[in-house]
Amino acid sequence: REERITLAHGAGGRATHTLIEAVFLKEFGNALLAPLEDGATLRLDGARAAFTTDSFVVSPLFFPGGDIGDLAVNGTVNDLAMCGARPEYLAAGFILEEGFPVADLRRIAASMAAAARAAGVSIVTGDTKVVERGKADGCYVTTTGVGVIERPVSLSASGARPGDAVIVSGPIGEHGAAIMLARGDYGIEATLRSDTAPLHELVSGLLDGVPGQVRTLRDATRGGIATILNEVATASDVAVVVDEDAIPVRAEVTGVCELLGIDPLYVACEGRFVAVVDGAHAGRALDALRAHPLGAGAAVIGAVKDDPPGLVLLRTAFGGTRIVDVLVGDPLPRIC
Amino acid sequence: REERITLAHGAGGRATHTLIEAVFLKEFGNALLAPLEDGATLRLDGARAAFTTDSFVVSPLFFPGGDIGDLAVNGTVNDLAMCGARPEYLAAGFILEEGFPVADLRRIAASMAAAARAAGVSIVTGDTKVVERGKADGCYVTTTGVGVIERPVSLSASGARPGDAVIVSGPIGEHGAAIMLARGDYGIEATLRSDTAPLHELVSGLLDGVPGQVRTLRDATRGGIATILNEVATASDVAVVVDEDAIPVRAEVTGVCELLGIDPLYVACEGRFVAVVDGAHAGRALDALRAHPLGAGAAVIGAVKDDPPGLVLLRTAFGGTRIVDVLVGDPLPRIC
Ligand SMILES: Nc1ncnc2c1ncn2[C@@H]1O[C@H](COP(=O)(O)OP(=O)(O)OP(=O)(O)O)[C@@H](O)[C@H]1O
Ligand SMILES: Nc1ncnc2c1ncn2[C@@H]1O[C@H](COP(=O)(O)OP(=O)(O)OP(=O)(O)O)[C@@H](O)[C@H]1O
Ligand SMILES: [Mg+2]
Ligand SMILES: [Mg+2]
Ligand SMILES: [Mg+2]
Ligand SMILES: [Mg+2]
Ligand SMILES: [Mg+2]
Ligand SMILES: [Mg+2]
Repeated sequence: REERITLAHGAGGRATHTLIEAVFLKEFGNALLAPLEDGATLRLDGARAAFTTDSFVVSPLFFPGGDIGDLAVNGTVNDLAMCGARPEYLAAGFILEEGFPVADLRRIAASMAAAARAAGVSIVTGDTKVVERGKADGCYVTTTGVGVIERPVSLSASGARPGDAVIVSGPIGEHGAAIMLARGDYGIEATLRSDTAPLHELVSGLLDGVPGQVRTLRDATRGGIATILNEVATASDVAVVVDEDAIPVRAEVTGVCELLGIDPLYVACEGRFVAVVDGAHAGRALDALRAHPLGAGAAVIGAVKDDPPGLVLLRTAFGGTRIVDVLVGDPLPRIC
Repeated sequence: REERITLAHGAGGRATHTLIEAVFLKEFGNALLAPLEDGATLRLDGARAAFTTDSFVVSPLFFPGGDIGDLAVNGTVNDLAMCGARPEYLAAGFILEEGFPVADLRRIAASMAAAARAAGVSIVTGDTKVVERGKADGCYVTTTGVGVIERPVSLSASGARPGDAVIVSGPIGEHGAAIMLARGDYGIEATLRSDTAPLHELVSGLLDGVPGQVRTLRDATRGGIATILNEVATASDVAVVVDEDAIPVRAEVTGVCELLGIDPLYVACEGRFVAVVDGAHAGRALDALRAHPLGAGAAVIGAVKDDPPGLVLLRTAFGGTRIVDVLVGDPLPRIC
């Protein structure tokens, strides 16, 4: 039987990682790609830079709190920020479907321009392709970013150590829940908006607040925080133990997730990250985050332990403990 | 009436440029994007670098002489080369259609890896998205490249001056003609293959062969050499006068083009460029190009004149002269 691409391969969870390792890492294999961080850290004529790309295929193109344009800018800005870089330049490639309204394209471009200005980056190069009707879904955007790493940081999912604290920068799942609502005829009235936002300033504040104490940064996009925490547990060969009660989730997100039968731990954010920080500096790290509006809801949600290595454990509100796996399947296709 | 995207907006000719200027340049507007060269030239912590992106939507995915994978690597390598940069790192974003065979994806990735090795670049970061059946056409790839500009070059379509020589690096139109044949049920037997190739070494040889004498480099992709020559004529406010007899076109390309009613001047190459060089150094430039296998068929095809500014004139084989316009419409959708 011929193996074929499924929606799960795009969900950011187990199937995505298997595909990336079995196909892309295997073929492209090099030391800069291998750690599979949010972006590559490289040297360019002496400069230390970060480089990252994301294609955006979100549906619908316009949703409460944002659209594919600001999502595409913020998404790449954030992957640069997770590398400890100051985002500087973006490239933007468009794949347009024949018949797409130029007014919608203009709206998307304007939204990208506004997001770029807000993040202090410039869109300096691009590309525009058109495919026939029925060969795309209106508009797909690929943004690629480059930025300078100014601090002597060493950030990696493999850097967590027992005793570290696990922090989330704010309430989770709002982007995914907003997209679900925007799509659905669920008859739910909600004021939920995507959390899409540029995180580099929040990250700067954290890195300056606890210099040398941040081990890992990862934005919780596809697969949600559950998947990120698993990546840390696996890459660092540690246990990550989180308290359900400590994880900030807005009531509306909980409500939408219950209705759709999805665990908020797996729902994508587009303006939140997980940080692993030396346990002794967790308080100062939290202060640094809370000093920025985008980190007002930051919380310590758990700790890194020795045992059981490679696993994420959730202490439930009822006093039990359960294993939290990476995302399997795709409950929510085309979230970004 | 609502304005909508047409295939012509993706053809690389007049409609593409109008769209880019009216939407993208207008919204993103900044000094690095504005010259609309093959890539942006920027400073990154002191380093002088080039940055460029292209999305690839070619159909079919596999064709004589190449596939979407090596095309995507060489295309971005070449846009970096046209900026005078040494290509170093690539990012690769994939948009996959649900149901796409994993074996085909693997073949594409292997082809990208081979092309990257051949060009001396590393694919260091990437992204993988999946859309539902009927929302793409198998596989789209976006490559973005970054490279260091080591020489003190100043290359631009606006740099041509009267007296300069216009050179093409080899016979034109082979990529487009090969794609047409691969698609069609034209009943033509031909040995035509895509000319896809990485051009940075050929460019290095040229830049070292006639230091400081190269004004413009541009790879003749969508819109063919006719469109490139018009870009030079417009941006430099000069006349570009070319001799039909001097333009290298293989007999098979001429044959396919005649059959399909397309002028080879508008047919895309993926391994050829146009160079504008100081007229006094044309001979040495040609020698430098011919010293490399990919430049064996290089030829001086014309000259830059004062008058009439902004126009491209073709001296036909029959002794007449006609104006060569930019590409209008889209005779050949999804060529790259
Ligand atoms: N097609 C690909 N080729 C090469 N590397 C890839 C490819 N797809 C993903 N990767 C790499 O795999 C890792 C995980 O990619 P992923 O897209 O899940 O990360 P992300 O961009 O942080 O998340 P998201 O796309 O949800 O925002 C990254 O290091 C990325 O560079
Ligand atoms: N959507 C876009 N946003 C910003 N700039 C764009 C966009 N599309 C194209 N451009 C810019 O317009 C110019 C022309 O782009 P174009 O894609 O035609 O060049 P190219 O990549 O050299 O050609 P090809 O795509 O045929 O290989 C470039 O400077 C490019 O950066
Ligand atoms: Mg990320
Ligand atoms: Mg990302
Ligand atoms: Mg392009
Ligand atoms: Mg080009
Ligand atoms: Mg190009
Ligand atoms: Mg990604």
